Amino acid sequence: MDLKPLIRSIPDFPKDGILFRDITTLLQNPDGLNHVIDRLVELYADESIDYVAGIESRGFIFATPLACRLSAGFVPIRKPGKLPAATHFTEYELEYGTDRLEIHQDAFPPGSRVLIVDDLLATGGTAAAAAQLVEKTGSHLTGFAFIIELLDLGGRQKLPDLPIQSLIEY
Amino acid sequence: MDLKPLIRSIPDFPKDGILFRDITTLLQNPDGLNHVIDRLVELYADESIDYVAGIESRGFIFATPLACRLSAGFVPIRKPGKLPAATHFTEYELEYGTDRLEIHQDAFPPGSRVLIVDDLLATGGTAAAAAQLVEKTGSHLTGFAFIIELLDLGGRQKLPDLPIQSLIEY
Repeated sequence: MDLKPLIRSIPDFPKDGILFRDITTLLQNPDGLNHVIDRLVELYADESIDYVAGIESRGFIFATPLACRLSAGFVPIRKPGKLPAATHFTEYELEYGTDRLEIHQDAFPPGSRVLIVDDLLATGGTAAAAAQLVEKTGSHLTGFAFIIELLDLGGRQKLPDLPIQSLIEY
Repeated sequence: MDLKPLIRSIPDFPKDGILFRDITTLLQNPDGLNHVIDRLVELYADESIDYVAGIESRGFIFATPLACRLSAGFVPIRKPGKLPAATHFTEYELEYGTDRLEIHQDAFPPGSRVLIVDDLLATGGTAAAAAQLVEKTGSHLTGFAFIIELLDLGGRQKLPDLPIQSLIEY
């Protein structure tokens, strides 16, 4: 199944000069949505993933069904002030400004195998920050999965030397 | 499976006097997470749901795996400024302030059967706003599913007269 026709491209969002790749048209499509999750399951079925960590908020959309299918736990990596228990945090630059991410300190038992999932790999700043957070918990980060990768932005170079999968490349 | 032991209660979050019901401990638990989704699938398997609409951002966590299992589409109801195409919006009061929600105008084909999913039914303000949004699109709202319902806050009384399911009550 070719997923690209299900992605809508919207010029000048969220600001002038940015061509936004809109996944809502993919998510609306039951076959497209299930195909994405099936592809992710194929990629990680034999990787003994204990936890799928999704980055707020579009990462949640793909991380949770994947966690269910892998019989793994789901852990949210969130914007500041959203997680109620003790957190680790890290600051990072994102495509359109700066931000901060948090994870619960007790998100994973020590030594857990963790996969990070987000919808988009752009500059890599968000995913790199998420990787730092997982490492702060003492868990074993196994890699990254993205639905879309914007190749021109070179996000892979910002990430640790671990397997990186993306389903759709621009 | 008794889900309540998997929910962590955190006093005085996000402010003094609020006892926050933390679902991250449920989400971490693969059996608990899958049990929640299985229960939702049982409730809606025969309801001919075309689209599951999840409210940002914790609603996304449950709405997407449910949409996958029902072979339905997933539609995000989001905070302001996040959806890139033309939106309907509505203002609402939430438990700790006021906010605004948006939905894409083309989220559903006319006449679609839509289920709204969120993690928590508290005062009902957010879910009532989401219901208004679905109605603005011209779709057929069939009901609401929540993981947790805080009975004392009477949120059901704010919602349209449609079936409301919640898995855990306090």
